[in-house]
Amino acid sequence: VGTGALALVLVALMAFASACTPRQPESRRAAGVATSDIALAAQKVYVPPGDLDPYYMFASGGHSGNVYVYGVPSMRHISTIPVFSPYPATGYGFDDDSKRMLGGLNWGDVHHPALSETKGEYDGRWLFVNEMNGRIARIDLRDFKTKQILGPVPNLHGNHASSFVTPNTEYAMMASRFSRPVPQRPVGVDKYATEYKGIIAGVKIDPARGEMSLAWQILMPPFDYDLGDAGKLVSDGWMFFTSYNTERATGKLEVTASQRDRDYIAMVDWRAAEKAVAEGRADTIDGVKVIDPNKVAGIVYLIPCGKSPHGVDVSPDGKYIVASGKLQGVTTVFNFEKLQTAIRNNDFTGDEDAIPVLKYESVKDAEVPVGLGPLHTQFGTDGWAYTSLFVDSAIAKWKLGTWEVVDKVPMSYSIGHLTAAEGDTVSPDGNWLVGLNKLSHGRHLSVGPSQPESSQLVDITEEKMKLLYDAFTEPEPHYAQIVKADKIKPIEVYPKEENKHPLAIWDVKDAGVTRQGKKVTVKMIAVRSTLTPTDFTVNEGDEVTVAITNIEQTTDELHGFGLLDYNINLVIDPGETKTVTFTARKKGVYAYYCTNFCSALHQEMQGYFIVQ
Amino acid sequence: VGTGALALVLVALMAFASACTPRQPESRRAAGVATSDIALAAQKVYVPPGDLDPYYMFASGGHSGNVYVYGVPSMRHISTIPVFSPYPATGYGFDDDSKRMLGGLNWGDVHHPALSETKGEYDGRWLFVNEMNGRIARIDLRDFKTKQILGPVPNLHGNHASSFVTPNTEYAMMASRFSRPVPQRPVGVDKYATEYKGIIAGVKIDPARGEMSLAWQILMPPFDYDLGDAGKLVSDGWMFFTSYNTERATGKLEVTASQRDRDYIAMVDWRAAEKAVAEGRADTIDGVKVIDPNKVAGIVYLIPCGKSPHGVDVSPDGKYIVASGKLQGVTTVFNFEKLQTAIRNNDFTGDEDAIPVLKYESVKDAEVPVGLGPLHTQFGTDGWAYTSLFVDSAIAKWKLGTWEVVDKVPMSYSIGHLTAAEGDTVSPDGNWLVGLNKLSHGRHLSVGPSQPESSQLVDITEEKMKLLYDAFTEPEPHYAQIVKADKIKPIEVYPKEENKHPLAIWDVKDAGVTRQGKKVTVKMIAVRSTLTPTDFTVNEGDEVTVAITNIEQTTDELHGFGLLDYNINLVIDPGETKTVTFTARKKGVYAYYCTNFCSALHQEMQGYFIVQ
Repeated sequence: VGTGALALVLVALMAFASACTPRQPESRRAAGVATSDIALAAQKVYVPPGDLDPYYMFASGGHSGNVYVYGVPSMRHISTIPVFSPYPATGYGFDDDSKRMLGGLNWGDVHHPALSETKGEYDGRWLFVNEMNGRIARIDLRDFKTKQILGPVPNLHGNHASSFVTPNTEYAMMASRFSRPVPQRPVGVDKYATEYKGIIAGVKIDPARGEMSLAWQILMPPFDYDLGDAGKLVSDGWMFFTSYNTERATGKLEVTASQRDRDYIAMVDWRAAEKAVAEGRADTIDGVKVIDPNKVAGIVYLIPCGKSPHGVDVSPDGKYIVASGKLQGVTTVFNFEKLQTAIRNNDFTGDEDAIPVLKYESVKDAEVPVGLGPLHTQFGTDGWAYTSLFVDSAIAKWKLGTWEVVDKVPMSYSIGHLTAAEGDTVSPDGNWLVGLNKLSHGRHLSVGPSQPESSQLVDITEEKMKLLYDAFTEPEPHYAQIVKADKIKPIEVYPKEENKHPLAIWDVKDAGVTRQGKKVTVKMIAVRSTLTPTDFTVNEGDEVTVAITNIEQTTDELHGFGLLDYNINLVIDPGETKTVTFTARKKGVYAYYCTNFCSALHQEMQGYFIVQ
Repeated sequence: VGTGALALVLVALMAFASACTPRQPESRRAAGVATSDIALAAQKVYVPPGDLDPYYMFASGGHSGNVYVYGVPSMRHISTIPVFSPYPATGYGFDDDSKRMLGGLNWGDVHHPALSETKGEYDGRWLFVNEMNGRIARIDLRDFKTKQILGPVPNLHGNHASSFVTPNTEYAMMASRFSRPVPQRPVGVDKYATEYKGIIAGVKIDPARGEMSLAWQILMPPFDYDLGDAGKLVSDGWMFFTSYNTERATGKLEVTASQRDRDYIAMVDWRAAEKAVAEGRADTIDGVKVIDPNKVAGIVYLIPCGKSPHGVDVSPDGKYIVASGKLQGVTTVFNFEKLQTAIRNNDFTGDEDAIPVLKYESVKDAEVPVGLGPLHTQFGTDGWAYTSLFVDSAIAKWKLGTWEVVDKVPMSYSIGHLTAAEGDTVSPDGNWLVGLNKLSHGRHLSVGPSQPESSQLVDITEEKMKLLYDAFTEPEPHYAQIVKADKIKPIEVYPKEENKHPLAIWDVKDAGVTRQGKKVTVKMIAVRSTLTPTDFTVNEGDEVTVAITNIEQTTDELHGFGLLDYNINLVIDPGETKTVTFTARKKGVYAYYCTNFCSALHQEMQGYFIVQ
């Protein structure tokens, strides 16, 4: 659409946002929906007491900094995994190790969770999540804990197009939504088009331990990189990223960054990038190997795409790459074979900062008329594709190959992403689809100005999609993945023999206080229903380290260590040792106690810290 | 029970905790529960898309520091209200005002939410919550925001028996779970019995604005005060608090604090306390008016109660006070009229630090054989009472007056508190009961060692209680209250005319930067889809205040202000102004952007902060 059409769409959108707020929504029962339909929907989402959901959903918590875990189809919230923000409920960010991992940044903007894959299937080992302050984290699905935070990495600012993984988890991706001078230095926005740079980065993942390391970066034009996906099967070896603001504009971007009719998808040959770095063809900027397309060809290409695309999604067979201008009425399907042919034939229309631009007509297979505002596509079985439509506030179902749109289901309101069961794998399940909506107003009991998000559950097992349930999710599910429950095999107790912590103790006889100058170390045991020692005394100004070992080996027998007035709350899982280090500030008596319910005598699990 | 019996119970409990963990719980469908029963339960908890839950549940988030809000009966989590911990999803603890309110303590242990009341009915105005670091907070139910945090208050340590309110919200209560020297000073635990003191406090609430102020404290023996409730109707004017460790023991409390067969309920005549303070009969300790029962009689009495009681619950008509030894097989019903008679007649058996001890046999009406481990009682219609049984892991239903136990429903596993619809009012609804269980293992998809809590929904509309649903709640629902939805009337937009913030602006023409020496003030406007100004430059070392006004007047049109690398994320609700003040640390370019999805052009809502 041109700028005039865009303006119309904007006016429509503003009106829509104001009008779609029925404060007391009409009851569907009252609206005459058949009782039998409601009964059927009720039973489909109902998980009786004692039964388990068959799927996990891992959802981005956006600017909460967390990952939220749900059961599907009940949509029950079963876990909050703190990643980039402290969470005293689990003691995260309060003990020495997790505080060090957070590195003083107590906030992150989580966007796109990516389950680790083997041969293009979720393998249940790790979950990677990006956040905007140039970071990416690994959650270990053995215990649902954040184990590593990489970054903030140099050069790359606003890590939005992340953390999509390659089919054997060789890499997770990073790419900048915000360009800035590389290396970092103060340069006015008047020099934006030439002095600011975008960055695409490859984060190498150790196949055995999941350890992440920044492998390479590519210097890109100052576009805003938005979302990504990895090629798979036939397209394995490539990464795809959408971009907007290819105008290189500044100021009021809602106007200045919408001048061109097309933006780009960047496609990166990550094996070629690896090779270029191995061959010494990268520069080192701020300690990072950076590939400059002005010096190294054959790494990255640009595919023209409808204006301001959001998602870019590779089909399960790897043959198609689907992306849409976010205010268009169609989604474009690009053909991977045509992309390869065009690259081989140098079928380019020009370049952007030495990166070749492919010819749209040469590489596209179809423009599918899905409806207005297509943002993101997920897949089912048999070539079915499901595209979220922000402006239409609906999901369109269509078929790869025939490009036929066969069904639509309305979303309330304004769907952003959507996620299908096993939807990013080479073999989606075709059972459940969840619309991750951006505005929930009027669909839940009012909770004031700060509203939850609405995530609607859709049954996609039959020809017609069926909306079954409105669930409400924590801010802000930018994306989620749904995985078969039997792929995840968590432990609930840390085996004693695995605990190698130097301050771990397993017998209350070994509990006690040692001193070296002004450094005091307290080895403590937590076990039902005593924290041993039950009191200890230090001098004002001492640096105190308390190392607590929870010697339980029983599931759900966590113990807490809350020290009042000291801003300290640890939670120590069965078999775990955690430490906290602090300065004894002020003379007096301070209670410590188990903050995490543990037994009938939980209330008796307390002691006194005395500062003299 | 005596010490021998206690030891047996403990052994049984340990065995229970280990044995009750079926990792793949038997399916109820497989177990032959009739399909029609499942269908019925499914429909009772199912809320069709667009319909609203008829009740809110406000649940304590324990050591998360939050309050979690659920819809009942769907049990959907619809809001997280941050109270004592920062929560970047709403920007809480990141803007200047909320950061100041938290006062450097970024953690709290929330226990007992109390809805404000008028004539003993929830009035939908405020929610009060206590936490262990001597604090109590007020959430305004007009906008579901924390508006005031009182404390940490002097003298009182470990504010557990809180924040129960009186029937016209004259007072919220506080009481110490941990005693310590008053005033605070280092004293060894060997002097615990005589030098450490407990504290009960009355927090006065302004009837128009809800503003809390610490009115008075009572110096109490060094017991651990656990839970409370206010008298109502006939017993209005009294507060009741359970206590344990009346042995005044230290060390391994699971043994040392279980020597006596009875502990106490403290009953406080709060109007008498008010009067004593008004008459100048209180001492001032650390700035607080403290009543010493050695000097002032007639304020507080002690009722003997089964060992280590947990809840103390006043019946809807105010006539009965119910409390139980937590390892007993009975719950005791005390009669308020008998309590008054005994006080009038000086029917005492002795005293504890000058506080008269009433005679158990003179004041009790009944010992109801509810089952093992009674912790907490809630009420329905027609005198029905529901008592949670921790050791039996069940709820018992019994009748006030006849004392007959008529039904039990098992809980999985180990119920602590329970909450009934409108359960703490003078007229409970008798519809829903939620068991707040302490151990959830095996009832949900495994999420590693750190497990959610299980909150089970029970239908109490018929003679037999019916377990309908397992819901999973965030750590840790020590208590919750369920209120009729139509009593809560939140606003979703702050009216422009109410915004009196000195830095508020409403026209983009007024946006911009002013400087006074090294202090820089940025007045910013957030409105779809631009943050104005779109860039600004300061000098390294400047103290920068950004004041952002969201000029939207449309529901759900929140805007965020994330400043990368600066640990800053605000969320500004429609019509609101927030400020953040920070030092420009390091030369370079930093992006700011809207972190809270707002419209189709949300991604374009960004700008640059340049430090030169």
